[in-house]
Amino acid sequence: MSDAGSAPARKPAERGPQAEPAPTGASFHTMWRDLLPVGRDSGTGGYRRYAWTPADADCRAWFRDQAAARALTYEVDRNGNQWAWLGDPAAGDAVVTGSHLDSVPDGGAFDGPLGVISSFAALDELRARGATPTRPLAIVNFTDEEGARFGVACAGSRLTAGRLTPEHARQLRDADGVTLAAAMEKAGQDPEAIGADPERLARIGAFVELHVEQGRALDLSGDAVGVASAIWPHGRWRFDFAGEANHAGTTRLDDRRDPMLTYANTVLAARKKARLAGALATFGKVAVEPNGVNAIASLVRGWLDSRAADEATLADLVAAIEQAATERGARDGVAVTVVRESFTPVVEFAHDLRDRLTALLGGAATVPVLPTGAGHDAGILAAAVPTAMLFVRNPTGVSHSPAESAAEDDCVAGVTALADVLEGLACS
Amino acid sequence: MSDAGSAPARKPAERGPQAEPAPTGASFHTMWRDLLPVGRDSGTGGYRRYAWTPADADCRAWFRDQAAARALTYEVDRNGNQWAWLGDPAAGDAVVTGSHLDSVPDGGAFDGPLGVISSFAALDELRARGATPTRPLAIVNFTDEEGARFGVACAGSRLTAGRLTPEHARQLRDADGVTLAAAMEKAGQDPEAIGADPERLARIGAFVELHVEQGRALDLSGDAVGVASAIWPHGRWRFDFAGEANHAGTTRLDDRRDPMLTYANTVLAARKKARLAGALATFGKVAVEPNGVNAIASLVRGWLDSRAADEATLADLVAAIEQAATERGARDGVAVTVVRESFTPVVEFAHDLRDRLTALLGGAATVPVLPTGAGHDAGILAAAVPTAMLFVRNPTGVSHSPAESAAEDDCVAGVTALADVLEGLACS
Repeated sequence: MSDAGSAPARKPAERGPQAEPAPTGASFHTMWRDLLPVGRDSGTGGYRRYAWTPADADCRAWFRDQAAARALTYEVDRNGNQWAWLGDPAAGDAVVTGSHLDSVPDGGAFDGPLGVISSFAALDELRARGATPTRPLAIVNFTDEEGARFGVACAGSRLTAGRLTPEHARQLRDADGVTLAAAMEKAGQDPEAIGADPERLARIGAFVELHVEQGRALDLSGDAVGVASAIWPHGRWRFDFAGEANHAGTTRLDDRRDPMLTYANTVLAARKKARLAGALATFGKVAVEPNGVNAIASLVRGWLDSRAADEATLADLVAAIEQAATERGARDGVAVTVVRESFTPVVEFAHDLRDRLTALLGGAATVPVLPTGAGHDAGILAAAVPTAMLFVRNPTGVSHSPAESAAEDDCVAGVTALADVLEGLACS
Repeated sequence: MSDAGSAPARKPAERGPQAEPAPTGASFHTMWRDLLPVGRDSGTGGYRRYAWTPADADCRAWFRDQAAARALTYEVDRNGNQWAWLGDPAAGDAVVTGSHLDSVPDGGAFDGPLGVISSFAALDELRARGATPTRPLAIVNFTDEEGARFGVACAGSRLTAGRLTPEHARQLRDADGVTLAAAMEKAGQDPEAIGADPERLARIGAFVELHVEQGRALDLSGDAVGVASAIWPHGRWRFDFAGEANHAGTTRLDDRRDPMLTYANTVLAARKKARLAGALATFGKVAVEPNGVNAIASLVRGWLDSRAADEATLADLVAAIEQAATERGARDGVAVTVVRESFTPVVEFAHDLRDRLTALLGGAATVPVLPTGAGHDAGILAAAVPTAMLFVRNPTGVSHSPAESAAEDDCVAGVTALADVLEGLACS
């Protein structure tokens, strides 16, 4: 976030505002500045805020401090999600807002934290306006949204919504073989207590998540803020290509069973088939064994992320990619197995809440309503609770990268919009 | 190594001999059994004996013990190579044999250790024959032959031969960022002392390295042992494909600069062009940033290992692969840079020593003479010292893999052949 044009576009997180911020901006700016250095890699400039690490603990301490500074009631639920309440948590029909503080590997400063910081800033704005909530208001930090460490996205909200079993969650392992259970325990969170939390969900009357846009729709339409219509169905599939390790300098090409070839062919096939389907397919993560320069790989593991506007298109696309992999594998002497690691069906956000937000922000003529390909905790909660999302313009569309950015004016517009929504929903 | 057919071919290293071994076999077998568990991963069954690690230290302690058990004069040279001398090291015109004890990631039990163990066993055989050397005899363990940890193959022999500068060597880093200098120092070897050692090379009148074959030529010809003619020129090139990190779920295909696509295309192009050239090209090692499931990669780094029968063919092949990468990169919006990390010219082993070995082993009618695509310390020394190699049959040709194997009878035949060679060279 920054004054537009004040610094090179690739390093937004290093920039601070150049002028005296407005009152809403002042609250936002102070929080932004405090959180900025936490978990940031000095080499890449990207964030490495993975669940239950020291960087995550620092983010969580920041959240707790923000709750304390505003005399909010602070809670950590059984799954490690953090809550800050204004009003009685048990009264029911609460209006909840928030997002997450964790990051993908070398992620940007906005994805997640913008929503949490904007939530606190919107609350400050409500107080500055003298608005008095008639419903409980809460701010939430959902734990492990990105799934960067243990492989399951939205782990905190999934557990709460009963869409990830505690047994399965506890045995998830990070790249070093540490289980989620062990990581939680080390961080002081009881892994035996995790699981579905319907009582907590029943307290919520509406959930609104503000998030930086991860595409360029708002930039193209010229709007600072938009309302979400739906989340594309999406999932992760692990492709294991199993060949035979051998010496790269002595094994005849005809004697090889080289899984790197099958993987490479599958990467290109995925792109081509996604284009034909008008959908998305990406291999962004790879693990190779033994991963030696002069050794033909024995195993290449590639993770496919795929998304489409509807579930039938997505299913057909993934099946076509799997078929291409299997056919090429037969030529290469490579066995291909595919495991679906996660899947999120299409999410249509509640139409009445979406329309209410649109009306509070000036009507459909002034605020665009748009879908997104990115998963969010809001997408998990939507099955159990009336849920809506606000997006803040991303001038480049770049996301999951240190180059992710949003102009400070747009961030402040997002806070104002969120305050308008919270006032309309909770103070009316 | 094992009695032929006594166990599944995929787990040779778990098998021991089934019958009472012959005297030569007994010495070999005892050493084999002692070294077998060192640095072996219980999960993969492969070896992880990387330079200057605890597993490497255990291998080195084993070597020192073998020297002591035979009352040989033990030395560690300035580059960390281990030597065991029978006779006066300073007398000159020595006959030296040996190989290396380190491994590639999840390598087999034979590549390297077979040559070192066979050297000690051949010395035992000479003593059993009552043969008295008239020239100094030495057994050597060259350090860090595979380059698995610091990326430069044959680091120990290269330093000694002046083909790797101490300044360059000291700053090599492993995957954790540890420099070779720091690793050596931690292992008790002075990194400031490393460098060319012409005095040591001047002591050597002939060097003979025994090695398991890493192809199937001896298996196809039906011979237990062969003599090397030449080593193909070979090298390692690092290809950096630099694109732009972005969100895999929200970035339009047309807006992407995805280096995984360029990498994948290059892998397939390398295979095709190698086939056309009658040569070898392999991508077996990859590193991806940020390597997140839902992030388009910002950087894919792939290492090319390529070899051909002559240097012109190899240069043309690598240039063609680089051109294919650059052309595809232009389409993908991905910058491609190529760095040659190592290169070893063609090695023609000394013809007179090669012919002498062939004669000592019964003449060209009984022992095949064959080239190899694999690099060896013998290939480094060949520029400074008359050098030869013996190969022991590998029934599957599999190498750099836990499945690497050789029959016990063939291993014993290798020891006998090496003893014949040493007797002929040093005891005449």
